[in-house]
Amino acid sequence: MSKRRGLCLVLAAPSGAGKTTLSRALLEQDDALLLSVSMTTRARRPGEKDGTHYHFIAQERFDDMVAAGKLLEYARVFGRSYGTPRGPVEAALTAGQDVLFDIDWQGFHQLRAAMPGDVVGVFIKPPSLEVLRQRLIKRGDTPEQVEERMKHAEAEISHAAEFDYIVENHDLDVALADLRAILRACRLATKRQG
Amino acid sequence: MSKRRGLCLVLAAPSGAGKTTLSRALLEQDDALLLSVSMTTRARRPGEKDGTHYHFIAQERFDDMVAAGKLLEYARVFGRSYGTPRGPVEAALTAGQDVLFDIDWQGFHQLRAAMPGDVVGVFIKPPSLEVLRQRLIKRGDTPEQVEERMKHAEAEISHAAEFDYIVENHDLDVALADLRAILRACRLATKRQG
Repeated sequence: MSKRRGLCLVLAAPSGAGKTTLSRALLEQDDALLLSVSMTTRARRPGEKDGTHYHFIAQERFDDMVAAGKLLEYARVFGRSYGTPRGPVEAALTAGQDVLFDIDWQGFHQLRAAMPGDVVGVFIKPPSLEVLRQRLIKRGDTPEQVEERMKHAEAEISHAAEFDYIVENHDLDVALADLRAILRACRLATKRQG
Repeated sequence: MSKRRGLCLVLAAPSGAGKTTLSRALLEQDDALLLSVSMTTRARRPGEKDGTHYHFIAQERFDDMVAAGKLLEYARVFGRSYGTPRGPVEAALTAGQDVLFDIDWQGFHQLRAAMPGDVVGVFIKPPSLEVLRQRLIKRGDTPEQVEERMKHAEAEISHAAEFDYIVENHDLDVALADLRAILRACRLATKRQG
């Protein structure tokens, strides 16, 4: 069998649904899965490493890349740009590596449009909005942050049905096993086999 | 969340690929998965139990069911009829149970046409035709049976790409884990969630 082309696994979730923990665990357990590192024009924060958390670049270079069609998806948030460079993703897929994307539903739609057939979208849902609220409070968010994030979460969740899979994160181990099963199954899809 | 509608999991494979062993193991480990029992007009063989291996029925009744549209798929092999009754499958899916089908590529296409959206097809492939030949010889098939089955296997395998997933049965445990992942992922598909 010829070498399998990799796939793009998008994980989207409202803040507090457990996406970061799940992504890390998934990446740790799976050598064939790489994290896509986004580019951003925002300033580096203490503790952040260039090339690991983000590629920190100047706005001019970002705009040049957009103009040259070198970004698979991008967005502007609070006056700062964020995007996914096409080159590393293409190289990984061709080498048979899968790539994990931590982006929102808008990024998911852009990515799917840019690479039709390569993208699998998973939406991670909290068991309920009430559970999400409790988690945000428990992790120490201020009441204002909680209200802000709850509003944002409701908006995100309204897009859940646009994804290929929905994983409810009631229990972290179960949700992780769900994600691993989805990744394994997607690798066995006929259209991804040589 | 409302009750998930079940799905139809079709396993197809050439003789000797390990389908029977895999089906049994899958059914044993999974309470939400039921085996679809076919109807047939052929005579019961020693050791076969009515309602377990097949529903043994008269040709006239079979033909009546075909005429009434009560079979999801059917075929005639060596003058005997085989088919899947619609009633039990519909009842299982509505109750949120998944149903396993041991049918060939033609049955798969009929089933998919009868229940679009409910059917997931998995083709189980031997690692190679040579390995398949060795397995058939090892299990005691006569040289004529081996040749006959190899010819039939090549024809079956030519339809593998029409299925949603391809599982290569090189190692039984790995292939079983593949099938379990596919089933788990398909249950998480957005279109199957409430």
